[in-house]
Amino acid sequence: MNHFDLSLYLVTDRSLALNRSLEYVVKEAAEGGVTMVQLREKDCSSKEFLNLAIQLKRCLKSFAIPLIINDRLDIALACDADGLHIGQNDIPYEIARRLLGKDKIIGLSVENVRDVIEANKLDVDYIGISPVFSTPTKTDTAEALGLDGVREITKLSEHPSVGIGGINLSNAHEVIAAGADGISVVSAIMSHPDPRLSALQLKNIVVKNKLK
Amino acid sequence: MNHFDLSLYLVTDRSLALNRSLEYVVKEAAEGGVTMVQLREKDCSSKEFLNLAIQLKRCLKSFAIPLIINDRLDIALACDADGLHIGQNDIPYEIARRLLGKDKIIGLSVENVRDVIEANKLDVDYIGISPVFSTPTKTDTAEALGLDGVREITKLSEHPSVGIGGINLSNAHEVIAAGADGISVVSAIMSHPDPRLSALQLKNIVVKNKLK
Repeated sequence: MNHFDLSLYLVTDRSLALNRSLEYVVKEAAEGGVTMVQLREKDCSSKEFLNLAIQLKRCLKSFAIPLIINDRLDIALACDADGLHIGQNDIPYEIARRLLGKDKIIGLSVENVRDVIEANKLDVDYIGISPVFSTPTKTDTAEALGLDGVREITKLSEHPSVGIGGINLSNAHEVIAAGADGISVVSAIMSHPDPRLSALQLKNIVVKNKLK
Repeated sequence: MNHFDLSLYLVTDRSLALNRSLEYVVKEAAEGGVTMVQLREKDCSSKEFLNLAIQLKRCLKSFAIPLIINDRLDIALACDADGLHIGQNDIPYEIARRLLGKDKIIGLSVENVRDVIEANKLDVDYIGISPVFSTPTKTDTAEALGLDGVREITKLSEHPSVGIGGINLSNAHEVIAAGADGISVVSAIMSHPDPRLSALQLKNIVVKNKLK
């Protein structure tokens, strides 16, 4: 398994990038201190998805930041990404692991306690607690788990975890205090006028609150 | 490479199945004489896509009819399909071949003469000439090639070919007469009240016109 650090995990969404290129925002975020990047693109052709993945992989290599592909195992294989993130409606974990091999990072979204109990039976590398707060950037998710949900799940989970959904500068510290190993953000970086500054500030919050 | 016969190639579209299950329509079509089936599903989760693929694979096995997956190389790998069909906006052929191996069928859509010249440089197993006639079932395709286009492309192509787009009982013979090795249909079978009868009739047209 690759080494990875869940502290500040950027999930992409080009539609929120304020007309800036994905590569620009990701590079700025990398310089600001993001520790992982997940390429999540729902409305593009496979060719375009792969081209974006190849572009980001090249960009992130110099920062030694892992590139994780959302859902599309074929894109992860095709660009030799560092890993794959799957949700409950994606290809089952066992098949993804068999096809990707043991050296790649595989993360799994959990939306409730039952998902966590199932995830505990698998050698996934991390879980994504989703959604922590309600969020407009993803419409197909379950009800918000809240900080109580994060506490319950992180206590129960045998895997490292990252919270996702509605996390920003004002609530990031609470997610870490509730037991998550990191925070995952979309709009807090993608839509920030200064993605580097936003990443820097978020990273500081995570680091400080992890030390507590 | 697997053995395959392009004569009558069914491409699925659940939204056109008149509320019948995909498995029902495909099984009827198989009994009527389709020689290949391509699972093409654009609006479903990866998990649902894979479940449909596994279902169809089981159904088609007893007929010895190859199951081809549209676009999604990961689904093809995950269900060990017989092959993959890619368009000009999908994962590039070379990557698909490397990941699928030499024993799987790979088909490539061509929309113009330039695409055919490129396809001639590749060891694709067949080309899909798309679209032959204008069709409401696929909205992202290029302008209709017409029968003149089919003649030009089949003369130029070094690979076997199947025509797709707007082909039905009334024009199928012309596509074969123009040089295609087979016809590919969606609604002519998916939306037919009797998919088995429709497949039988289309198959007869192809067989008769190939003998000419």
